[in-house]
Amino acid sequence: MQMNRVTKLALAAALIAVPSLGLAQEADMTPPTGEIGYIFTTFMFLVTGFLVMWMGAGFSMLEAGLVRQKNVTMQLTKNIALFAIAAITYYIVGYNLMYPGDGWSIDGILGAFSAAEMEAVGGSPDTDLTYASVGSDFFFQLMFCATTASIVSGTLAERIKLWPFLAFTVVLTALIYPIQASWKWGGGFLDAGGFLDFAGSTVVHSVGGWAALAGALILGPRIGKYKEGRVVPMPGSNLPLATLGTFILWLGWFGFNGGSQLYMDTAGNVADISRIFANTNTAAAGGAIAALILTQLLYKKPDLTMVLNGALAGLVSITAEPLTPSLGAATLIGAVGGVIIVFAVPFLDKLKIDDVVGAIPVHLFCGIWGTIAVVLTNGDASLGTQLYSIIVVGVFTFIASGIVWYILKMVMGIRVSEEDEIMGLDKAELGMEAYPEFSKG
Amino acid sequence: MQMNRVTKLALAAALIAVPSLGLAQEADMTPPTGEIGYIFTTFMFLVTGFLVMWMGAGFSMLEAGLVRQKNVTMQLTKNIALFAIAAITYYIVGYNLMYPGDGWSIDGILGAFSAAEMEAVGGSPDTDLTYASVGSDFFFQLMFCATTASIVSGTLAERIKLWPFLAFTVVLTALIYPIQASWKWGGGFLDAGGFLDFAGSTVVHSVGGWAALAGALILGPRIGKYKEGRVVPMPGSNLPLATLGTFILWLGWFGFNGGSQLYMDTAGNVADISRIFANTNTAAAGGAIAALILTQLLYKKPDLTMVLNGALAGLVSITAEPLTPSLGAATLIGAVGGVIIVFAVPFLDKLKIDDVVGAIPVHLFCGIWGTIAVVLTNGDASLGTQLYSIIVVGVFTFIASGIVWYILKMVMGIRVSEEDEIMGLDKAELGMEAYPEFSKG
Amino acid sequence: MQMNRVTKLALAAALIAVPSLGLAQEADMTPPTGEIGYIFTTFMFLVTGFLVMWMGAGFSMLEAGLVRQKNVTMQLTKNIALFAIAAITYYIVGYNLMYPGDGWSIDGILGAFSAAEMEAVGGSPDTDLTYASVGSDFFFQLMFCATTASIVSGTLAERIKLWPFLAFTVVLTALIYPIQASWKWGGGFLDAGGFLDFAGSTVVHSVGGWAALAGALILGPRIGKYKEGRVVPMPGSNLPLATLGTFILWLGWFGFNGGSQLYMDTAGNVADISRIFANTNTAAAGGAIAALILTQLLYKKPDLTMVLNGALAGLVSITAEPLTPSLGAATLIGAVGGVIIVFAVPFLDKLKIDDVVGAIPVHLFCGIWGTIAVVLTNGDASLGTQLYSIIVVGVFTFIASGIVWYILKMVMGIRVSEEDEIMGLDKAELGMEAYPEFSKG
Repeated sequence: MQMNRVTKLALAAALIAVPSLGLAQEADMTPPTGEIGYIFTTFMFLVTGFLVMWMGAGFSMLEAGLVRQKNVTMQLTKNIALFAIAAITYYIVGYNLMYPGDGWSIDGILGAFSAAEMEAVGGSPDTDLTYASVGSDFFFQLMFCATTASIVSGTLAERIKLWPFLAFTVVLTALIYPIQASWKWGGGFLDAGGFLDFAGSTVVHSVGGWAALAGALILGPRIGKYKEGRVVPMPGSNLPLATLGTFILWLGWFGFNGGSQLYMDTAGNVADISRIFANTNTAAAGGAIAALILTQLLYKKPDLTMVLNGALAGLVSITAEPLTPSLGAATLIGAVGGVIIVFAVPFLDKLKIDDVVGAIPVHLFCGIWGTIAVVLTNGDASLGTQLYSIIVVGVFTFIASGIVWYILKMVMGIRVSEEDEIMGLDKAELGMEAYPEFSKG
Repeated sequence: MQMNRVTKLALAAALIAVPSLGLAQEADMTPPTGEIGYIFTTFMFLVTGFLVMWMGAGFSMLEAGLVRQKNVTMQLTKNIALFAIAAITYYIVGYNLMYPGDGWSIDGILGAFSAAEMEAVGGSPDTDLTYASVGSDFFFQLMFCATTASIVSGTLAERIKLWPFLAFTVVLTALIYPIQASWKWGGGFLDAGGFLDFAGSTVVHSVGGWAALAGALILGPRIGKYKEGRVVPMPGSNLPLATLGTFILWLGWFGFNGGSQLYMDTAGNVADISRIFANTNTAAAGGAIAALILTQLLYKKPDLTMVLNGALAGLVSITAEPLTPSLGAATLIGAVGGVIIVFAVPFLDKLKIDDVVGAIPVHLFCGIWGTIAVVLTNGDASLGTQLYSIIVVGVFTFIASGIVWYILKMVMGIRVSEEDEIMGLDKAELGMEAYPEFSKG
Repeated sequence: MQMNRVTKLALAAALIAVPSLGLAQEADMTPPTGEIGYIFTTFMFLVTGFLVMWMGAGFSMLEAGLVRQKNVTMQLTKNIALFAIAAITYYIVGYNLMYPGDGWSIDGILGAFSAAEMEAVGGSPDTDLTYASVGSDFFFQLMFCATTASIVSGTLAERIKLWPFLAFTVVLTALIYPIQASWKWGGGFLDAGGFLDFAGSTVVHSVGGWAALAGALILGPRIGKYKEGRVVPMPGSNLPLATLGTFILWLGWFGFNGGSQLYMDTAGNVADISRIFANTNTAAAGGAIAALILTQLLYKKPDLTMVLNGALAGLVSITAEPLTPSLGAATLIGAVGGVIIVFAVPFLDKLKIDDVVGAIPVHLFCGIWGTIAVVLTNGDASLGTQLYSIIVVGVFTFIASGIVWYILKMVMGIRVSEEDEIMGLDKAELGMEAYPEFSKG
């Protein structure tokens, strides 16, 4: 996802000029041309896109496993609803807003407020065969927008009302995400300034994290979480679900990072996607092992939820640059992510910022780390530009989200009543229990 | 799945004549020919086929989550067994019965009662390179047959005996499904008459629904479900599982609808598959959101199980025509599906038809709606033909299923004893509990 | 996975000479050459590789569902940790050790102790376009190594300490697995001797089984499992999870066996992969149905856990030769696997070998059966060579594993205290419960 529609044309020209990205060709071998490359790249988007879609299930299971039993149905409802909302808002507004085309003129930006349209059935005569079908690109990009929304729901669990949360999701997926994503992936000013964020450590993960942080600050911690200076543990109700969710996310991330190569029409591109798959995997492993060892050393007992978040931390950390690192560097970049969350989770608790599933450490802190880490393996990256871009995206997202949360709080209230929170959102807001037959301990 | 072996040859000729479905080619670009197209389409069937296979897990989790705790092991047993049965019966009888070849002569039909055979190892000299490998086509088609059987198990849960259910599955997958599927996808009379059902709103989903309805009528409702004019709620025991199942089905449906394009050998075909992926996703979203909003309006509380079924309703609704709608039209077609199930579930209860998981509203009612909705976006569709075909398939399946259920009832009995039903099928029929250590509330 | 780097070059030459594996070509059709074949095969490895990665989730869920509630968190921790360990050790040592290159000279073997390296970003001028990218090959092969480690954790559940188990995993994935795998897949002496093991009934599954068996013998059975001559049932705590795990493994196995074709660059190869998918599916079905019917006949009640293990038994049984059988033969080979486990599970109990999830019957016994069954459908196989290779791999793995287990027992102890075992590993070793809110029955 380094490229965008604006730069695509230039690139297409370059690709024609240097057909195989520097690969020496044996005499009788020619790179795929025309429809073949188009089919390869399009099908690659469909496959990696369905993997990213599957991450929606991963977040659902992770969060359902990490909340208490009395809030599980609500967490499931939020997750499936936010995924559905993202599908619709990104189609109606987000997609075209993210790719304003027409060189960022006034006309271009106004025109961007329009619904997505796919190519005609059977293809059309003016199809640009150097990239992929619009439908596949839309499908793939949509899933990134949905992922951003998924990140928010975990942090704010167990106390936020359903409808204000969904209202926020509408704004996040229709406006906040696409606008800032356009700055990088739509050929905007961050992209022009040399910002590098391959698959979205900043553009996706930190944005979800900033939106969650703004919400957590305005919403406040759960009742009883911080009591007389102590942090009261509120353990998740179903760790197999949380583990399943982590495995799903790990799997989906191959699509997330791999598909962001954006082209699979040459040997060089598919080899790059392979590198990305292998690096993504090893970064997750590094994060998991780092958290495993560190919790053993610090607490004398390994902590499964930290290991799960460690794997996710590794994944977020490698997302800004999954291509250039060696396997060893990718493992270490992921491992640093695992270390970060082991310290960040209690750090947030010290600040009395109540993040139910640890989404802020994983997606915001490691999103920042991953964006900085680009400079370690990619010679084109500038630390200054990376930091500047992290801050620009962060300030915009945090303020915009904060305003939306604040308005929602004023207009409709965002937090359930104390009584409802203690009873649990499932009974109070939904009248439906997740496990009605299991008696409570 | 619009095509069949009979029409395939004609189509192959057409493809050669109009190699790229109308796409204008740049001077040096030629559509993929020969083996390349064959590899593309074959691999596409393998990928979409494994996605549809995965729907078997989706139905299992959905149903295991929606039955009561005392019947969970039985529901799991039925689901894995029916999937295994379908694999074997469809191989021994179903596949060739569905594609009678030889122009529907007597010889052709007799010859159709034969086991499936794949091409020789390493390929064979007479391979038709214009389509896909027989093995991949078999693999893909088999999964549709298994899906049909999966639909039935949910409706009849919590009271039907294991072995009669499996006996019915044998007949459904070996005979009922393939026979009626041959009328459309085997080049039979419905296909000749202009019936359009892209991926099986009628051929798969309504057939599962009709078979379930016949069973539900003969089997009767669960003990205590309808009591003194009231409908007694019997909530599902594990909503995270039901949600996971829905996400799995949502994912698998990309394969279900996308693979039904049947070809991925040109830019036009892969662009069409992309359209289908995007439309399938947005229809599910439309169904989920419609059910969410409608249950809020009607009951003042959103109902997660309705939202899940709403997503599935949207998916079934778009299945008869996932290609021609725009994203907006697909969203609306799905949303109507979501509305249908919110009203259909209590409607069935009013009729005292006890459908444990809501499979009849989702697969039968929305299957009919989806088949009708083809006329909204596909100019080639005729409302009369669509209705006629819905009725033909419905009458055949309902009567054939009814006869089989009735014979099974007479010969071996299909319902467990009252005592066993109250105790739960897990203990009574299997002697094995799904969650032996969780005490019951 | 019949081939290896050493033989690859010879094969590449052969492929160029006989471009389409005997397929007659229509006049204007030429097999894909150069980059196109490279992209096809590489992408095939990425897709099948992510399916095999997903099997890690399958083992986790299967095992978490089959252990008792008090040991679930530990089982999850072991599974995610072993997967992460395999990713790192296989990269640092295993991959190059498995493919010693350089004709098995001293230099080659010493050189094999080195970390894996992928091709340069963007590809490199000396890329061999007749196979696939190194990154994709590494990714795919790694997942097989991780699978081997996953097999061990189930057998030894509920009594082995975390860290010694992980220490064993390091040795298994860094040394034991790659060394014996090199004998077949690295072009070693078993390969040279004519041993046939397409996707690893012996190389992966029996190796996991032998390592588990050695561990089980040294570790001893769980407290209370064998009491006064009786076998005390210790039922799994969550059968939906176990069923989900089985479906995940079934799905992942399409990648496991299908990807082992190693090439998808011709019509013949993709048709072969299709055969493999279809045969893999039907073998699983055969195993499940055999176990279903047999447990009904023997015990008058079908046993879900046997049906699940029956499906897995069918999958392991077809793994040594998923290509050459007809659909009927594959079904029967799988069914024999299903029969084996129904008898093998009580047989192990008679020997007081305590295998918590049945991994030894499934992976070792059916791994042996599958390896022998190659001679039934593949004319190139010799029974003597198959048996010899089974024994060589078995003796090596059993002794090497036994030594490692023994050393670990002496150095750090491998078994938790009696008190901890009774309390459950979750509380004792991790201080974290899997389902903290469900009261125990």
